[in-house]
Amino acid sequence: MADSLPRSPLAPSAFPALPSIKGLRLAAGAAGVKYQGRDDVMLAVMDPGTAVAGVFTRSQTRSAPVRDCQAKLGGETSAGAAILVNSGNSNAFTGHYGQTSVDEIASAVAKITDLPTARVFTASTGVIGEPLPHDRIIAQIQSLNAGLDQNALEPAANAIMTTDTFAKGASAQVTIEGQTIEIAGIAKGSGMIAPDMATMLVYIFTDARVEQTALQAELSRICDRTFNCITVDSDTSTSDSLMLCATGASGVDATGNAEFSQALEAVMLDLAHQVVRDGEGATKFVEIQITGAASDSDAKVHGLAIANSPLVKTAIAGEDPNWGRVVMAIGKSGAAADRDLLSISFGEVLVAEKGWVSPDYREEDGAAQMTRDEIILKVDLGLGDGICTVWTCDLTHQYITINADYRS
Amino acid sequence: MADSLPRSPLAPSAFPALPSIKGLRLAAGAAGVKYQGRDDVMLAVMDPGTAVAGVFTRSQTRSAPVRDCQAKLGGETSAGAAILVNSGNSNAFTGHYGQTSVDEIASAVAKITDLPTARVFTASTGVIGEPLPHDRIIAQIQSLNAGLDQNALEPAANAIMTTDTFAKGASAQVTIEGQTIEIAGIAKGSGMIAPDMATMLVYIFTDARVEQTALQAELSRICDRTFNCITVDSDTSTSDSLMLCATGASGVDATGNAEFSQALEAVMLDLAHQVVRDGEGATKFVEIQITGAASDSDAKVHGLAIANSPLVKTAIAGEDPNWGRVVMAIGKSGAAADRDLLSISFGEVLVAEKGWVSPDYREEDGAAQMTRDEIILKVDLGLGDGICTVWTCDLTHQYITINADYRS
Repeated sequence: MADSLPRSPLAPSAFPALPSIKGLRLAAGAAGVKYQGRDDVMLAVMDPGTAVAGVFTRSQTRSAPVRDCQAKLGGETSAGAAILVNSGNSNAFTGHYGQTSVDEIASAVAKITDLPTARVFTASTGVIGEPLPHDRIIAQIQSLNAGLDQNALEPAANAIMTTDTFAKGASAQVTIEGQTIEIAGIAKGSGMIAPDMATMLVYIFTDARVEQTALQAELSRICDRTFNCITVDSDTSTSDSLMLCATGASGVDATGNAEFSQALEAVMLDLAHQVVRDGEGATKFVEIQITGAASDSDAKVHGLAIANSPLVKTAIAGEDPNWGRVVMAIGKSGAAADRDLLSISFGEVLVAEKGWVSPDYREEDGAAQMTRDEIILKVDLGLGDGICTVWTCDLTHQYITINADYRS
Repeated sequence: MADSLPRSPLAPSAFPALPSIKGLRLAAGAAGVKYQGRDDVMLAVMDPGTAVAGVFTRSQTRSAPVRDCQAKLGGETSAGAAILVNSGNSNAFTGHYGQTSVDEIASAVAKITDLPTARVFTASTGVIGEPLPHDRIIAQIQSLNAGLDQNALEPAANAIMTTDTFAKGASAQVTIEGQTIEIAGIAKGSGMIAPDMATMLVYIFTDARVEQTALQAELSRICDRTFNCITVDSDTSTSDSLMLCATGASGVDATGNAEFSQALEAVMLDLAHQVVRDGEGATKFVEIQITGAASDSDAKVHGLAIANSPLVKTAIAGEDPNWGRVVMAIGKSGAAADRDLLSISFGEVLVAEKGWVSPDYREEDGAAQMTRDEIILKVDLGLGDGICTVWTCDLTHQYITINADYRS
C-alpha cells in the first residue's frame, strides 16, 4: 500500500545519513505479514548495560504489544535488550490471543539472542482486529539475527512503514568532556496521529550511558514538547510507542547532561516533524505558535483545537487565509480566551487584533502567506505567559482517498 | 453558494407542510448582504404574551448577536417579540462595531413593529470577521413588516440558509384538554456543526402558553438530547442559536404538560436530524447508539469520539466496515472502557465482542450494512447503565471541496 501512494510533497529529499550507534545492531526482513515484496519486520539487539525508556499511548483499547512493553519497562539492564517490530498488523483488539502472539515472538527472539524474555520488547503496526500471523514472523528471526548489522537503521526504518510515503530518520552528535556520543532515531506514522503520551512507532538509540530512571524522566519531559505537540487527524492510535535505548557503549555518562538533552530534543523534534510532513494527504506543514495564554496547558489546548479543526485544515488546503475559522477554533477549545484581547498572524502578517480584523490587513498579504509549503500561524491570547507550539498539516482530498478507499 | 451545491442525497423529498402558528407572522426578503438573487433576511413578529427561551453557543468567541440575545432573554413578555435573521455574514469577531450593527437593526425593527428594543432578537450567519452591512438589512425592514404573513415559515427557512442544500422544517400537533396546539420550527446548518448548548440557527414556534421559566428549562433539557447529540465536523460555530417562542395565542396552557414535551422533542429531533442529513458532503446518515457505559455522560463522550473521528467517518464514506477504527475512537475518548467487555454491532450484525472479532462475524455481513444510506452503529461498553444516542454523517471528498475551495 505504501508503494501505491505518491511521496509526500513535504518529504525531505532523501533519508539522512545516520551514524552507527555503539552497542546496537539491527536487521530487517520480509515476513509477509500483510505486505508482499517488501520488508515488514525489523530486529534491534542491544548490548548488556542498555537502559530502555518508553512512552506509550494512553488509549484504553491499546494493543497487546503496548501493554507488554509497559509491563517490561524498568527491568534491570545487565542483560541487554532487543526490540522486534512488524508492520501490516497491529495485534490490537485481538483478545487474549494478542498476548499469546507477543509471548511467542518474545520467546523466540529471547532464545536466539540469548536474552531473557523480560528484555525483549515488541511492537506491531497496521490493521486493527485481525490475528497476528506470528509464525511468519518467528520464521524470520533466525535470519534476522544472522544479519544483524551496525549500519541498518535505514532498512529498519523502511520495514516499519505502513501508510508512510517516506522512511523517517534523524540524528545528533554531542561531545561531553572531549568524548563523542551519538543519538539516532527512526519513526513511522502518517495517519491516526494525535499522540497522547507518544506517537506511532519511534525508536531512538544512543551510545551514551544514562541512568534508567533519569532516561525515562527525560524521555517523558521531551515527549510532551515534541511528539505530544503534533497532530495529523486528531485520532490516537492503539499502538503508539516511543522507545529510547541508551546502550552506554561509548563509555560516556550523559545522565543529567544539558547538551545531551538538547541533542535528544532536536532528534525527537525532527522525527515528530517528519511524521507531520508525511501526514496522510498533507500538502502544507503548519506550525501553530500560541503565546499569551493563561497557562502553558491552556496554550496547548488552543493549539490543538486549531490544529485539529477540519475547517481550519481545509482552509489551509485551499490556501484561504480564513482567520475566522481560527477564531472559531479558539472559541470552542474550552481554554480561556477574550475576543477583544487576542491577535492572530499568518507568518509576519498581522491579521486580527482587538476583536476584529487589523486595520492594516490586506487580504492579498494573507493569501500570499498561504501559498507557502510551510505556514506559520501565530495566536497571542493577551492573557498571560502561557506558550506552546503545535505542528500539523492540512486536510486534503488525498486524506479522504487514503482512508475511505483503503483499509489500512 | 447554496445554489451551486447539489442537494444532499439524504435530504427529505420536499419541505414539509407546516401549520400556521397563532400569534406568529413572518416575512422573508432579499437584502443583498452577500448572496445575490435570493432571500437572505427573515423577520418573525409575535403577539404580546409571547414567552421566549433560547440556548446559545458556549464559544468564547461567540458573535455580537448571540451575546445580545443572551442579554435579552427572560425579559417580560407583555410586549410581544420579534426575531430578525440574516444570512451571508455572521457578524462574529467584528469588534465593537458588531454590537453597533445589532443595535441599529434592533432599533429599526422596534420602531416599525412598535416593540421595545429589548424584545427584538437578531441572528446572523455566514462569513466570520467581516463588518455586517446593516444598512442593507435596515433598508428592507419596512417591506418585511408590510409583508408579514401567518404562512411564511418556508420562505423564512429558505432565507436563513448558507451552505445548506435544503431548507429544514418540522412540526407537531398536541391536543390538551380537547384543544389543539401547534408546534413548528425551522433550522439552518450543515457545516461547523458540533453544538455545545445549541446548534446553528433554529427557531421553533408554538401557540401554546408556557410560563417563561418552564419554557427555558424544557428547551435546555431537550436540547441536551437532540441538538447537543449531533455533530458534522466537530467544529462549533460562533453563532449557534436555538430559540423557542410560545405565543400563547391558542389560549391553551401547556406548562409542564408531558405530551407537549414529547411533541416538542419530536420537532427538535427532526430538525437536528435534518441538519445532519445536510452535513457538508454527507452521503450517509449515521446513528451511534451507546449503551452499557459507566454513566450517561461517559456514553456521550464515547458517542461523540466515534462520531467526530475522521478515520471512522472516512471508513463510513468508503462503505468499509472498519470496526477497528471504532475501537480506536473508544480507546482515545477518555471515558471508561474495557477492551474485553465491549461489543460492537453494525445494524443487527454483531461484529466484535470479548476483546476480539465475533466468532460468527463475516466481513460480507458487515459490508452489506455499510452500503445503506442510514447506518446504525451500536457499542455496548459492558460497564454500567449509561446510554446516549448520537447522530453524524460521513466525511467525503465533497466536504473538502466545499471547505477548501470556498470561503463560507
